[in-house]
Amino acid sequence: MKRLMYVLLFVLLTGVSYAQQAKYVFYFIGDGMGVNQVNGTEMYLAEQEGRIGVKPLLFTTFPVGTVATTFSATNSVTDSSAAGTALATGAKTYNGAIGMDDDKNVLQTVAEKAKKSGKKVGVTTSVSVDHATPAAFYAHQPNRSMYYEIALDLPKAGFDFYAGGGFLKPSTTADKKEAPSIFPIIEEAGYTIARGLDEYKTKAADAKKMILIQKEGAVPSCLPYAIDREEGDLTLPEITESAISFLTKGNNKGFFLMVEGGKIDWACHGNDPATVFEEVIDLDNAVKVAYEFYKKHPKETLIVVTADHETGGLGLGIGKYELHLKSLLNQKQSQDLLSKAITDLRKEKSGKASWDEVKALLADKMGFWKELPLTWEQEKMLRDEYETSFVKNKIVFEESLYAKTEPLAAAAKKVMSQIAMVGWTSSSHTAGYVPVFAIGAGSGLFVGKMDNTEIPKRIAKAAGYK
Amino acid sequence: MKRLMYVLLFVLLTGVSYAQQAKYVFYFIGDGMGVNQVNGTEMYLAEQEGRIGVKPLLFTTFPVGTVATTFSATNSVTDSSAAGTALATGAKTYNGAIGMDDDKNVLQTVAEKAKKSGKKVGVTTSVSVDHATPAAFYAHQPNRSMYYEIALDLPKAGFDFYAGGGFLKPSTTADKKEAPSIFPIIEEAGYTIARGLDEYKTKAADAKKMILIQKEGAVPSCLPYAIDREEGDLTLPEITESAISFLTKGNNKGFFLMVEGGKIDWACHGNDPATVFEEVIDLDNAVKVAYEFYKKHPKETLIVVTADHETGGLGLGIGKYELHLKSLLNQKQSQDLLSKAITDLRKEKSGKASWDEVKALLADKMGFWKELPLTWEQEKMLRDEYETSFVKNKIVFEESLYAKTEPLAAAAKKVMSQIAMVGWTSSSHTAGYVPVFAIGAGSGLFVGKMDNTEIPKRIAKAAGYK
Repeated sequence: MKRLMYVLLFVLLTGVSYAQQAKYVFYFIGDGMGVNQVNGTEMYLAEQEGRIGVKPLLFTTFPVGTVATTFSATNSVTDSSAAGTALATGAKTYNGAIGMDDDKNVLQTVAEKAKKSGKKVGVTTSVSVDHATPAAFYAHQPNRSMYYEIALDLPKAGFDFYAGGGFLKPSTTADKKEAPSIFPIIEEAGYTIARGLDEYKTKAADAKKMILIQKEGAVPSCLPYAIDREEGDLTLPEITESAISFLTKGNNKGFFLMVEGGKIDWACHGNDPATVFEEVIDLDNAVKVAYEFYKKHPKETLIVVTADHETGGLGLGIGKYELHLKSLLNQKQSQDLLSKAITDLRKEKSGKASWDEVKALLADKMGFWKELPLTWEQEKMLRDEYETSFVKNKIVFEESLYAKTEPLAAAAKKVMSQIAMVGWTSSSHTAGYVPVFAIGAGSGLFVGKMDNTEIPKRIAKAAGYK
Repeated sequence: MKRLMYVLLFVLLTGVSYAQQAKYVFYFIGDGMGVNQVNGTEMYLAEQEGRIGVKPLLFTTFPVGTVATTFSATNSVTDSSAAGTALATGAKTYNGAIGMDDDKNVLQTVAEKAKKSGKKVGVTTSVSVDHATPAAFYAHQPNRSMYYEIALDLPKAGFDFYAGGGFLKPSTTADKKEAPSIFPIIEEAGYTIARGLDEYKTKAADAKKMILIQKEGAVPSCLPYAIDREEGDLTLPEITESAISFLTKGNNKGFFLMVEGGKIDWACHGNDPATVFEEVIDLDNAVKVAYEFYKKHPKETLIVVTADHETGGLGLGIGKYELHLKSLLNQKQSQDLLSKAITDLRKEKSGKASWDEVKALLADKMGFWKELPLTWEQEKMLRDEYETSFVKNKIVFEESLYAKTEPLAAAAKKVMSQIAMVGWTSSSHTAGYVPVFAIGAGSGLFVGKMDNTEIPKRIAKAAGYK
């Protein structure tokens, strides 16, 4: 009995729960958010306070924290669709598959199980609604690039709330044929489409099912990076808040909500550390919204935060026993906008921008020479690239999965990683562990290292989905 | 009551325990063993079975698994002495300190607390007994390089069992003066010194306190790498077994045993992946010895496995969505012995070894060209180095913390990492998370991400040390 009392005390003190049923489930997925992306962000935050160490994100303080493996059925290093399918269905599949197994059989997702169990269901992301990770929760297609077909699966799943940047191919099929726009099709299926937060607020009360995307004219592929955000841009915390309000209105039998921080991955593909850490902070801000809800319903709410894979092979150290993450604060924009600024300068000066003009731009956008002294090697790397791409006009853009980057911007972000003393082993995904954090009803199921396929199974168990 | 039953069921099913007192404590520290070193080893083992995924080490199957932060008081990236002190005393200190705080005050270690609480205490390692990690458990010196002074602290701590490769400076003080050998001093303090396992077996029964090091003539700095091991070499599993037998003989009031796998770090400093993974497997073999003991005393035994820091910034991926870890099986020796073989070949051929002779050596030792086809770039990297260091006789050894490596061996291990598709961001430590795994009495205290300073505190709590 004494032992039981101890156990109970531990459970009560820590918020770890094994037995409560999770009426409300939040499933946060940081795309590309390996363990070092998390630890790096916390060390970046501590350095902003002028000290060494970590300033914890909210989600790392959850009582349960562990790691998960991510390999796919076909590859040691997974892509986002196989990983998304694993996190959605509990099954390994081939790289490229969306909600289908190795033999292209449809796999049931934890979101579908939640729906079947009478829960309201939301699937949201900071990238496009038809992108691999969200798609893996509602669609079943043999290839992640079948964006039109994936979008058509959205009303079929019949979930209550979808949100993201927009849709990539609203009227073009996988075999590149023009096809009826998905928007009226989705509307006919009973969905209200809100373009931007204001429209959402106007339309939410009367809507039965909701699709929240960005305002007309925004780039549909994603929300802007947190580091590039401007007043009025739709954000992941806003999406999370809207989802909660929509999924709890009316007859409240509980909900399942997936929220993807999709652009951590994009910034990692670009090996752009400042942008990565700001994206992780932004995901944490979305988790904070869920946590506020959890505090009101602590016995009935489960929050799980994990990732689909690591991207970039981020290493927090390149030689000396130091990091200089605070330097990253001098970077004002993502590499995408830096690249754009360099292109703009080239155009503005009709290809004749001087080294001093380029230096001034880099000083302004990255803090080079001003706040951040460069070594001769670093200056040379930039100057060499200036000579090639400006003086000799040989402009070879660096291509990563989600960005085409001016060669000088690519050199600048390499210099910035050096200054911050972080390294990268890849411009693609790696097989590193991803973190798993959990709090609330059923969080005790997430103790101990696991495979990513375990996560949706344990969520279903915690929530009692059949 | 139903909830309590669930909790109890979880506790019973998983082996997680919160309330039992740990009469026997095993504290394994993999030096330099970041999370990717562990995950990489498990993927390396799976590939040996011809499949993608992980073949679990024993310790990753423990019911509790999480991560810990490692920064020191002075550096984002810790060294082994500050990390060892954190893991031994629960306090952050400056890089270089052994069992002392920032103001050079002596810190009490969890091993000392165990001793005070009437437990037998063992401190063991695969490197030298006076090296930073073991030293942090029994010594108190302002600098890790004070090997002689550290060794003199060993009898002062009065622990029951020490083991490792040997002693680095048995008769030379920190200020480089000749001094009385530590060996008779240690013997006068009541210790029996056993050189090699056979001597240990002969002497153990009558010994009150024991120091087990390698046979006369062995290099005292460390045990050989697992990948280089020869018949009769002392091993970490043997040390663990000897420690258990010694600490449980006679009046058995329980024990605290620290076991360091010290050369994971050394191999990571050298960015030598095959050697790293074999060292992690060897640490796991030592854990297996402890686990056999645990199975006999499951309610009274706690096993904690962790690391002091990550070394190398190991990334499990360099571009494609693949790993080729199985390739590493073609590497027959550590980079140290490859380097020696190259030096030997140079001598044997009086500096005139032909490219074909060098190729034959690399084919034999690394599988290059034979089992592992090289790209032209990889061949060129080796050939260029051959031209420099053999033809032009410009031999610049690569220096890392624990190795001086023939330039051609350094190039060969770079090629091997490329073939295996792993990357490194550093030849030194990084700030990456380290894993924490636990099983047995009190293991429930290790749920959730923590700082490394928490670990000895929780061990003390689990074991009831005052």
